Amino acid sequence: MCSVISRVKPVQRALASTLRLRTNADGLNYAAAQSRRFCPGLSTGAQPLWVTSRSYCARIATTDGLFFRQLFEVESCTYTYLLADTDTKEAVIIDPVLETIDRDLELIKELGLSLKVAVNTHCHADHITSTGLMKKRLAGLKSAISKFSGASADIHLKEGDKIPFGRHSLTVRETPGHTDGCITLVTGDQTMAFTGDALLIRGCGRTDFQQGCAKRLYESIQEKIYTLPDHCLVYPAHDYLGQTVSTVGEERKFNPRLTKSMEEFVEIMNNLNLPKPDKIDISVPANLVCGLHHV
Amino acid sequence: MCSVISRVKPVQRALASTLRLRTNADGLNYAAAQSRRFCPGLSTGAQPLWVTSRSYCARIATTDGLFFRQLFEVESCTYTYLLADTDTKEAVIIDPVLETIDRDLELIKELGLSLKVAVNTHCHADHITSTGLMKKRLAGLKSAISKFSGASADIHLKEGDKIPFGRHSLTVRETPGHTDGCITLVTGDQTMAFTGDALLIRGCGRTDFQQGCAKRLYESIQEKIYTLPDHCLVYPAHDYLGQTVSTVGEERKFNPRLTKSMEEFVEIMNNLNLPKPDKIDISVPANLVCGLHHV
Repeated sequence: MCSVISRVKPVQRALASTLRLRTNADGLNYAAAQSRRFCPGLSTGAQPLWVTSRSYCARIATTDGLFFRQLFEVESCTYTYLLADTDTKEAVIIDPVLETIDRDLELIKELGLSLKVAVNTHCHADHITSTGLMKKRLAGLKSAISKFSGASADIHLKEGDKIPFGRHSLTVRETPGHTDGCITLVTGDQTMAFTGDALLIRGCGRTDFQQGCAKRLYESIQEKIYTLPDHCLVYPAHDYLGQTVSTVGEERKFNPRLTKSMEEFVEIMNNLNLPKPDKIDISVPANLVCGLHHV
Repeated sequence: MCSVISRVKPVQRALASTLRLRTNADGLNYAAAQSRRFCPGLSTGAQPLWVTSRSYCARIATTDGLFFRQLFEVESCTYTYLLADTDTKEAVIIDPVLETIDRDLELIKELGLSLKVAVNTHCHADHITSTGLMKKRLAGLKSAISKFSGASADIHLKEGDKIPFGRHSLTVRETPGHTDGCITLVTGDQTMAFTGDALLIRGCGRTDFQQGCAKRLYESIQEKIYTLPDHCLVYPAHDYLGQTVSTVGEERKFNPRLTKSMEEFVEIMNNLNLPKPDKIDISVPANLVCGLHHV
């Protein structure tokens, strides 16, 4: 590092580190993340992906008539996604967070969107969903979550179900392992996959609570996500290093956990020794009822 | 808000708030941001943008053969952008941050990119650029910044200059006001504009130090950014509310400062009463020499 780094105010750096440490408990191995952050090139023994696949990163979103917006909640490092049909204005929101409900509803209002479905990729342990409160504020809005999540919702999703919005739709792929009720949502043209806490950028969701099972997660990613096209964009529920997007091709090539055999993966996942998420005791009960205790 | 919000650990919420407050000193009015965050609909008296412009938000990046990646640095809430030609692999990085140099260089290495230019949109006051250190690590890399920035660099940019990378290029538009040497970089097809600290999402850069001038900033945005197509995506140097992108059309319609007259804008900007950025005394001297004190 440069000599000037030591002159940065220690309090501010400590705050940033503390926040990052606290918020990443739901997904990524902090030690591994930090290792990658400060030791570049650890996993770059292979040929660059470009050699074998040129199209994987050419575009961000290519679907005609599809509005797309990625939003971030800093406390839990959660990504919320808003998708809409640019003609009909029908919209879907994925993994909205309670703390950012006003930001999200204002954007929806500004753009004149008609929010049809608020869907959670799973029953989160690190933050409370805004789904229930959104339903109170937006007439006609439906909540959706996997039928295997154990959570209440208007729509219980299963493999192959479609969530339509105008001419577009998201298709459900069941990707359990982080929890029993984890799903990945894929756009109709398979250019975008919202992978929740199954596949993260160069990481994956933890498997040590909430019915977590490393073997199931490995199978889910291999069978349901890695079977998508290389150029399919991977939009996870979280990132703790400031990465916003990846691709199936990139993750297949560079994900330090998923490039291992199943046995090695299970060994890694069973020895992460992560702290319990700060919010799990309030988040999970709340998220079982759309983020509201008093439904 | 939901009743459960009060049960969130106060320490964690305070940390998040503190971090957000500290990091937004360079750009957005914190009070205004918080007002918008918790009081939705304040600026939504107008018709939704969709009524008048359907195409503004249809896609994120439409240029064929262009790789694009947005990256975030949590401490200063800075966005770094990596663009490349998918065939030649020639790449440009915009506003790289010292703290995330390893992350950025690892991604560049994984993808097999050949980084040609590291460009800063201006001489930042809130973080130290990694440009100088990147030059030490990557042979042949050139640094670039506005000729009016007062900073040393391999390339001094002026209005109309192009930064080529493979078949693509970024064109310089001078947008002073936050500083004398602020530039906006626009892709050849005018689908993406990297606005630095001139235009932020629903905000703008402050004008109370580093040659700041509210009148100049207003003119820069009106003449150099708002003259781009409505659908042109706006990628700022910072965001403090988890917003990742906007469009020229959206900002023209909804930016609470820039929808005002110049006189009202100047009045707003002259009364923000923002605290001095924590890092200004080390960042500016460092950034005048590509982020390195000992060049």
